[in-house]
Amino acid sequence: MSTPPTPTTPAAPPVPAAPVRRDAEASRAAILRAARHLLARHAHADITLKAVAERAGVSPPLILKYFGNKDALLARVMSFETDAAALLDAPLEDLGRHMVRQVVVSQSEHGTDPLLRIVFAPLHGAQGDMMRADFRAQVTERLTERLTGPDAGLRAELAVGALLGIGVMYGLARGTHVRSTAVDVLVDRYAPALQAHLTPGPAGTGGPGGADPAPGRDG
Amino acid sequence: MSTPPTPTTPAAPPVPAAPVRRDAEASRAAILRAARHLLARHAHADITLKAVAERAGVSPPLILKYFGNKDALLARVMSFETDAAALLDAPLEDLGRHMVRQVVVSQSEHGTDPLLRIVFAPLHGAQGDMMRADFRAQVTERLTERLTGPDAGLRAELAVGALLGIGVMYGLARGTHVRSTAVDVLVDRYAPALQAHLTPGPAGTGGPGGADPAPGRDG
Repeated sequence: MSTPPTPTTPAAPPVPAAPVRRDAEASRAAILRAARHLLARHAHADITLKAVAERAGVSPPLILKYFGNKDALLARVMSFETDAAALLDAPLEDLGRHMVRQVVVSQSEHGTDPLLRIVFAPLHGAQGDMMRADFRAQVTERLTERLTGPDAGLRAELAVGALLGIGVMYGLARGTHVRSTAVDVLVDRYAPALQAHLTPGPAGTGGPGGADPAPGRDG
Repeated sequence: MSTPPTPTTPAAPPVPAAPVRRDAEASRAAILRAARHLLARHAHADITLKAVAERAGVSPPLILKYFGNKDALLARVMSFETDAAALLDAPLEDLGRHMVRQVVVSQSEHGTDPLLRIVFAPLHGAQGDMMRADFRAQVTERLTERLTGPDAGLRAELAVGALLGIGVMYGLARGTHVRSTAVDVLVDRYAPALQAHLTPGPAGTGGPGGADPAPGRDG
């Protein structure tokens, strides 16, 4: 399969030999990217191994070798496990800023989003229900465990909702102002609302602009 | 096609005769509902008149009679014109609460959302780009025109982003806590963040947009 370098032919520049491991990693990444792309545009049932292989520029058997089968590949891509771990990897008092930064950087630098694929759950039938259950267990419930005080479950959902919102505006509605604003400015403007759900209180850990939601006054 | 009432048969209770106009309106509404449902699950190109007709329980020619053709029907369903008018129909100092209430009531009572179909833009190819342009012109730019002060365009997008977020959490991620919380509580908790973007306080960031929207106090 490998084409030997032909240094004597000027028309064909030498290709640097990549280590095998690097090739395998690149192929795996290309397969995951292709599956992610298709899952945002087609129903689970309509996605074929062949389509993933074509988009990734690999052969269908290679996908089977790396991921077992189509369902295992798509389940892996639909899972929020890895992304949620990175998203929640910050001290609670800075978590709002960290979460917004993770989403905006992911959107602006990679054109992806750690959580936004949940919006396509309606496309995927029974797999969509599994996706929602994963989202709950891997994202909102894990965040809930970090929170103290009343209504932690509701507050986690409201914070994650706000986070999904900026992802929608950036990556799906493609708001021109949001997309042309510096990451730090977006974090400064948008994170206080998340932080107010995560750590409500007069301490105002949300920083400037942090809504002061007057804890304990809810019915 | 119409089945005459059979009042002499006990097993078939008499159906009250509806005026023709009522039937037409019901059919139009059923067609729009069916198109909306399909647009949230299938690519624009994959949706057929026949599929819309079957789901709506009408004949394809009736759709043509009411809406002209498939593209005109789908364009109508994709437009945000009517929904945005209702969504923005409140004084600026109460607009954050009004917008959150509109979304939550629409989600909880009708299982629909005034704006959320924008998340499916990636499914619709070139029509998706038109949908984004409509969203910009009919929603975020119209909101921007209502705002005063610096960065109105960015602030409008951040407020609409937050609004989309609670719609995603309610209707697509189906958060259990959000879905079991009273509308008024959700409005109290979530609207201050929107209002802080719409009417930022004297400090230029949060201010009265926080827990105490204080209508009339903004400059």
